[in-house]
Amino acid sequence: MTLKLYYAPGACSFVPHALLEAAGATFEPVLVKLHKGEQQSAQYLSLNPRGQVPVLVDDGEVITQILAIVTWLDHRFPQAGFLPREPLERVRVLETLAWMNNTAHPTFTHVFMPHKFAAGPEAQAEIKAQAASAFGAILGEIDAMASRAAESGRAFLGGASFGPLDAYALTLLRWGGFAGHDPQRFPALWAHVQRVAALPPVARAIERERLQLNVFGKL
Amino acid sequence: MTLKLYYAPGACSFVPHALLEAAGATFEPVLVKLHKGEQQSAQYLSLNPRGQVPVLVDDGEVITQILAIVTWLDHRFPQAGFLPREPLERVRVLETLAWMNNTAHPTFTHVFMPHKFAAGPEAQAEIKAQAASAFGAILGEIDAMASRAAESGRAFLGGASFGPLDAYALTLLRWGGFAGHDPQRFPALWAHVQRVAALPPVARAIERERLQLNVFGKL
Repeated sequence: MTLKLYYAPGACSFVPHALLEAAGATFEPVLVKLHKGEQQSAQYLSLNPRGQVPVLVDDGEVITQILAIVTWLDHRFPQAGFLPREPLERVRVLETLAWMNNTAHPTFTHVFMPHKFAAGPEAQAEIKAQAASAFGAILGEIDAMASRAAESGRAFLGGASFGPLDAYALTLLRWGGFAGHDPQRFPALWAHVQRVAALPPVARAIERERLQLNVFGKL
Repeated sequence: MTLKLYYAPGACSFVPHALLEAAGATFEPVLVKLHKGEQQSAQYLSLNPRGQVPVLVDDGEVITQILAIVTWLDHRFPQAGFLPREPLERVRVLETLAWMNNTAHPTFTHVFMPHKFAAGPEAQAEIKAQAASAFGAILGEIDAMASRAAESGRAFLGGASFGPLDAYALTLLRWGGFAGHDPQRFPALWAHVQRVAALPPVARAIERERLQLNVFGKL
């Protein structure tokens, strides 16, 4: 077995990165420098024609998409408990993971890369402002999830084990700083993210990516 | 067991709608009139605070998000084979389903509801034009998937059984008509969608939603 993860610091590839560390997996982390356009090199596009991270390569099998990679890691490392075994609990985690992936994540893309949606600078400024505001409401939803988890005595957003929702929540809250949202405005989420970040495997992934958790006001 | 599906004609709720028919399930279809804003009524928001379709209610359990609903229907109706059992094949289907859900689908949202991304009419026009063009490339990717399925003798996009990829592909190709893309420009996909639409359970869902498959030039 050889596992390889193509990642970019602070990107959503942090989700499988933290999960691989949490599983205690032996894997080769491969840094993709997005600011240098390495994801558009012929070599990278031959791996993932969509030019995105993350990519997981497992014994030659190339797997893209957070949801697919998480499902695969759950299958490969069942003892880690990344997804609940009980079908309804599992569906609940997938429901939130899908929403993070198809709503929260793309909303931030409008803040960070408005050129993907319109060419003109005025249109881009409008897109960015509207998305930054929407992203605040999204972080509010995740803050409420963190509150409910704390109130019901669940240590993690998806249940008893660290999993994809916790890693994605950390990533999204970090991105919030770039979108002008002080993490301290989301106290349950900020407390959760700080606690998760201190777990040794998560801390290893953070260190490898050289991430600051709170980037608000640091642009 | 009581199953209820909240759907809107032609929306992505077609995916679970067609799957419920394909499973031979007894279910109550509940029409949500999006053009009348019923998804924003207090009653609907108490069901799904995000004001979206589809919503599946199974014995009182409210499940949202295509990926979660599909996983649940696969669990409830294992004989239908909506998702492959073999782990890597299953991950392959989830990979494409996630991409349809987080990339193809939101790209069309920019064509159909540009006001979600910017307030000004000029910015909205730019957003719409850029997304309509991107949506053509996306349909090209799905057309290539349909070609590969046909060449390798697979009857459906996800394998041997009708499943979520087929129902989503039908929905996305229909939307393409609204985005200015003639389905005949995607011959493998158009042939696949027409064949899928003729399957009796899929035809029942299409009839209930009163869908025309080809809406190109019919606005």
